[in-house]
Amino acid sequence: MLPTIGITIGDPAGIGPEIALRVAGLREIRTVCRPVLIGDRSVLEAIRPVARCDREFTVYTEATVADALSSTPVPGDAIEMVDCGFLAEPVTMALPCAEGGRACYEYVRASIRLAWSGAIQGVTTAPINKLALSLGGIEAPGHTEIFGEATASPNYAMMMYSDRLAVGLVTIHQSLASVPGSLDTARIVAVGELLADAVERLRGQKPRIAVLGLNPHSGESGLLGTEDDEIIEPAVRLLREEGYDAEGPVVPDSAFTPVSVRKYQAHLCMYHDQGLIPFKMVSFEDGVNVTMGLPFPRTSPDHGTAYDIAGTGTASLGSIIAAVKLAARLAV
Amino acid sequence: MLPTIGITIGDPAGIGPEIALRVAGLREIRTVCRPVLIGDRSVLEAIRPVARCDREFTVYTEATVADALSSTPVPGDAIEMVDCGFLAEPVTMALPCAEGGRACYEYVRASIRLAWSGAIQGVTTAPINKLALSLGGIEAPGHTEIFGEATASPNYAMMMYSDRLAVGLVTIHQSLASVPGSLDTARIVAVGELLADAVERLRGQKPRIAVLGLNPHSGESGLLGTEDDEIIEPAVRLLREEGYDAEGPVVPDSAFTPVSVRKYQAHLCMYHDQGLIPFKMVSFEDGVNVTMGLPFPRTSPDHGTAYDIAGTGTASLGSIIAAVKLAARLAV
Repeated sequence: MLPTIGITIGDPAGIGPEIALRVAGLREIRTVCRPVLIGDRSVLEAIRPVARCDREFTVYTEATVADALSSTPVPGDAIEMVDCGFLAEPVTMALPCAEGGRACYEYVRASIRLAWSGAIQGVTTAPINKLALSLGGIEAPGHTEIFGEATASPNYAMMMYSDRLAVGLVTIHQSLASVPGSLDTARIVAVGELLADAVERLRGQKPRIAVLGLNPHSGESGLLGTEDDEIIEPAVRLLREEGYDAEGPVVPDSAFTPVSVRKYQAHLCMYHDQGLIPFKMVSFEDGVNVTMGLPFPRTSPDHGTAYDIAGTGTASLGSIIAAVKLAARLAV
Repeated sequence: MLPTIGITIGDPAGIGPEIALRVAGLREIRTVCRPVLIGDRSVLEAIRPVARCDREFTVYTEATVADALSSTPVPGDAIEMVDCGFLAEPVTMALPCAEGGRACYEYVRASIRLAWSGAIQGVTTAPINKLALSLGGIEAPGHTEIFGEATASPNYAMMMYSDRLAVGLVTIHQSLASVPGSLDTARIVAVGELLADAVERLRGQKPRIAVLGLNPHSGESGLLGTEDDEIIEPAVRLLREEGYDAEGPVVPDSAFTPVSVRKYQAHLCMYHDQGLIPFKMVSFEDGVNVTMGLPFPRTSPDHGTAYDIAGTGTASLGSIIAAVKLAARLAV
C-alpha cells in the first residue's frame, strides 16, 4: 500500500498552490505515494489554468478525510484534497497579505492534526512567507518550529538532504551571536542520533558522520574558542560510545572539500549557515528540507514563495518532487 | 622587467622547502617573475634530492641581496636564494620543533624587511605551523597577522583567490562568539575597498561585490540579529557612495549558489568559515591566500605544512604555483 502524503499548498499568494497542484498530478509521484492536497479549494480552482490542470478534484474535509482515504481506493486521475474552508476566494497573487498568512498557517495546522491522527503518513509543505505570517499575526520562525512545537517534540531538528549531501543542524533560526551560548553536548548528541538514523534509513547503511567544530580551525586547541573542546568533542565521544560512526570536531572549512564529501555521508553542523552555505552550493535544485524527530515525516522544498514568478506557471518542480518522494520514503 | 618575488621556504620540517625549491625552478614561474628563495641554505641543500634539484645555487645574504639583484641579470638556470644563516643544519623532518618554528619566523621577518625596502617586489610564503611557532616561543595566529603587524598596516585583510572565487574576510582568526561584537562599519568598508581594488587589478574590471550578512537570512529584519541592518547595511551604502558596485547584505546561504557565483566577482565575508567553507569546496587545489592592505603583495598557498608527506617529494605544486604567479601579477 502506498503511503498517503499530505501536501499543504502554502502561501496562496506564492508559487505554492501551483506547484502543489502540478506535483500532485505527476505520474512519478503517484507511483510512490497517494498525494492529498491540504488547502483551500477556492485557491486551487483559481490556479487551475496556471497549473494547466484539467483533472477532477475529489474534495474532503478534515472531518471526513480519514474515513474516505481508508475506504476509497486511489481515485484514477482525480486530485484529492482536503478543503480547509478558510478562504472563500483567492488572495491577490504575488503580494504578502494577512489573510494569506493566516490561511497557510491553517493548512499547516490541519496537516499536523491529520498526520498525528494517522489519517496521512507524512507531510510535504509548500512554501510559506514570514512577512505574510507576521501580517496575519502569526510569529513563527518557520515550518520546522511550527511542527516541532505543535507536536511537543523534545528534540526536533532540521536536515537538508539531497543525493550529494545530508546536513543536520544543531541550531537554526537564531542570531549568530546567540549560537555559541546555546550549544550543549546533549543537544548535539540528540541531533546526531536523529541525523544518523535518518540517513541510514535513506541510504541503507550507517553513515560516517562529520561533526563540525564551531570555531575557525575547530578552535585550535582553545586559542580560537573553547566550545569545540568542551562541548562538541564530548558529544562526538558519546555518539561513538553509542555505536555511531562519528568523527570530530572536524575543522569546518575542511568538512566540505571534495575529499571530505566522499568520506562523510552526513554532516552535523552547529549553525544555520555552516550547513546551508555548502548545501545550497551543490544542491540548489533538488535539496529537501526534512524535519527530524517528529512523530511523522515532514519535508519541504528548498525554496521560498517566489512571489516574483508566482502565477506564471514557470516555477521549477525539482525541489518539491524531491520533497514528496522523500516524505514517501520516510513514511514507509 | 620581471618583478622579483621572495619565496620564504616555511617550516623546515614540513613540505615548504621542497615545494619552494621545486617551484623556483619551474619555467612557468621564471617567465613571470624572478624567484628568490628566503631561508637557510643548509635546509635547501639537504632537500635537493627530494626536490630532484641539480641546479646551482646563487647565494646572497640579506645585506647583499638588494645590490646583487639590481646589478646582476637573471642567472640562467641557477636558483637564487637569501641565506638567513639561522640553522646550521636541517631539523628532523615531519616533526614540529622549537628551532624550526623560530627559523621560519626569521625567514618571514627577513622577507618583510626585503620587501619593504624594495629589494624584492612581493612575497610568497611557504607554510608555517602554529605548533612549531609556539614551541619556538612565537605566538602568532598566522602569516596574515605577522605581515600586518610588522608593517603596521592599518587595515590589512585576508583574501582567498582563485579563478572561480575571490573571498575577502572582515574577521579571521578569532572565536565565532567574538565575531558579532567585533564587526564595525568602517572596517567592513575598508576591507570592501581592498577587495574591490585587488579584484579589479586581477580581473581587469570592476567587480560586483556581494557583501554578506552575518546572521541567517541576513537577520530577517532584526528577528535573527541586528548586525545586518545596523552595521553591514550602512557599509554597503558607503561603498556604493564611493562608486563600488556593492550589494547586500546578501543572505549568506544564497551568496554562493551557482547563480550568485556567476553574478558576483567578489564576496566580502564577515567571518573565517563563512568565506572559507565555500572557497575550499570549489578551489581546493589552486586557492591562493592573499594579504591585502600591505605596502607590498604577499601570497601563500592554501595548505599547511603537511608533515605526513614532508620529505617525500609528492606534495602538489598547484597551490604554490598559483600563489607565486599571483604575487607576480600583483607586483607589476
